[in-house]
Amino acid sequence: MLQLWALEGIPEITVGADLVQIIADAAGDTLADGDIVVVTSKIVSKAEGRSVAAADREDAITAETVRVVASRTSESGHSTRIVENRLGIVSAAAGVDASNTPPGTVLLLPQDPDASARAIATGLRELRGVQVGVIISDTLGRAWREGQTDAAIGAAGVRVFEDLRGKTDAEGRPLVVTLPCVADELASAAELVKGKAARRPVAIVRGRADLVGDLDLPGARSIVRPAERDMFRLGADEAYDQGYAAGVQDVWDERGPNG
Amino acid sequence: MLQLWALEGIPEITVGADLVQIIADAAGDTLADGDIVVVTSKIVSKAEGRSVAAADREDAITAETVRVVASRTSESGHSTRIVENRLGIVSAAAGVDASNTPPGTVLLLPQDPDASARAIATGLRELRGVQVGVIISDTLGRAWREGQTDAAIGAAGVRVFEDLRGKTDAEGRPLVVTLPCVADELASAAELVKGKAARRPVAIVRGRADLVGDLDLPGARSIVRPAERDMFRLGADEAYDQGYAAGVQDVWDERGPNG
Repeated sequence: MLQLWALEGIPEITVGADLVQIIADAAGDTLADGDIVVVTSKIVSKAEGRSVAAADREDAITAETVRVVASRTSESGHSTRIVENRLGIVSAAAGVDASNTPPGTVLLLPQDPDASARAIATGLRELRGVQVGVIISDTLGRAWREGQTDAAIGAAGVRVFEDLRGKTDAEGRPLVVTLPCVADELASAAELVKGKAARRPVAIVRGRADLVGDLDLPGARSIVRPAERDMFRLGADEAYDQGYAAGVQDVWDERGPNG
Repeated sequence: MLQLWALEGIPEITVGADLVQIIADAAGDTLADGDIVVVTSKIVSKAEGRSVAAADREDAITAETVRVVASRTSESGHSTRIVENRLGIVSAAAGVDASNTPPGTVLLLPQDPDASARAIATGLRELRGVQVGVIISDTLGRAWREGQTDAAIGAAGVRVFEDLRGKTDAEGRPLVVTLPCVADELASAAELVKGKAARRPVAIVRGRADLVGDLDLPGARSIVRPAERDMFRLGADEAYDQGYAAGVQDVWDERGPNG
């Protein structure tokens, strides 16, 4: 049995807020060994002071961007930039977010979500004496599928992949191909109780204590597929355009500009 | 509070198995209005007789493929084909699966997972007199992120997207951009209790009765983003190669083969 619930009574988070104390207070004495605490990245960003003026949104996206993966302008003039940000995460607008932020401001992602997760996990373990894992979640779009799901952008004290090495299927054959990203599944599950419209940015997941472990387990950074191993490191239009330019250039190089 | 559990006692499924009766028997009298039943596609495929000889695996993948999106051969000679299958779903090997299948066989995806979901939802509603939703889940890889998560490839009687139109954030601003794909989140959450190694192919999710509704709600087909609107409809290498060939061709067309 897996149980999930959102914590009630989390106040509006401001710069410098002590998230460990706030989460511990909201959880009361309910936290138990093996619980996984899923924290919406937005409140981590707020506590870390990652707010910038909305007028600087485009500049902020550019500053957070390591590499533009794809971009498109719709007929209505709305432009979408899918980029790889400094954390390696591919998402729209580098995760720069304008919902549930103070008017006139937008929020950047936490500076280092794995470190934020580790700080919260360390603090909760010390304060409550319970071995919990922590996931920092964000809402991400996907290739090929409409809509968004929540995924893990930070993690500490919790396995991000289920280790099936050495496991076999019901017929006794090794499960070699499968690497379930349980951290993303936990973040998605938590979204179902946190919701988007309410102020419930923290959820507890109970029932997968087997996934909770040392604080030095690999973080969510290990979920990011390096671009050089990614078959979708560039949008189809962008890759086509690069290829087209290279094709034209190669013919020119071979024959000279006058053939 | 969201509660999830896997049904125990589901037998090995064979061709023609009555999944409605089998799920109802395994659930006993625990099913309630608003429950969401998440069924691993594998047992639906088995019941529908979608098994083919393993020797025909490559031919089966080709037959299920509408369009090759990307392909790659690793240094060890292992080849990966990311394809769009006849359901519009982009995945490795068109969802043709060799784990947890009888030796010497592989399984194709259900013929029409939305129809399969509808049949199971209709049957369970009639047999048990409870308004349940049904999701057919499969394990899918992702662009940009390592590992796999479970997602919804069939759905009936359950909202696949949470409708936030008209909803506002905590600051009163409309939540226009966000379209949470709750069906995929439910499938991911259910994977956390079903697992890959055990024979627990059916999970119940209780606590989001607000997502359960009429049997004619849009199915999981509505999650599929049409290729023409997808910025990642083609792998980067494939798009580059197409562009390169077009660039070379255009120079030739302009100047003739002898410049």
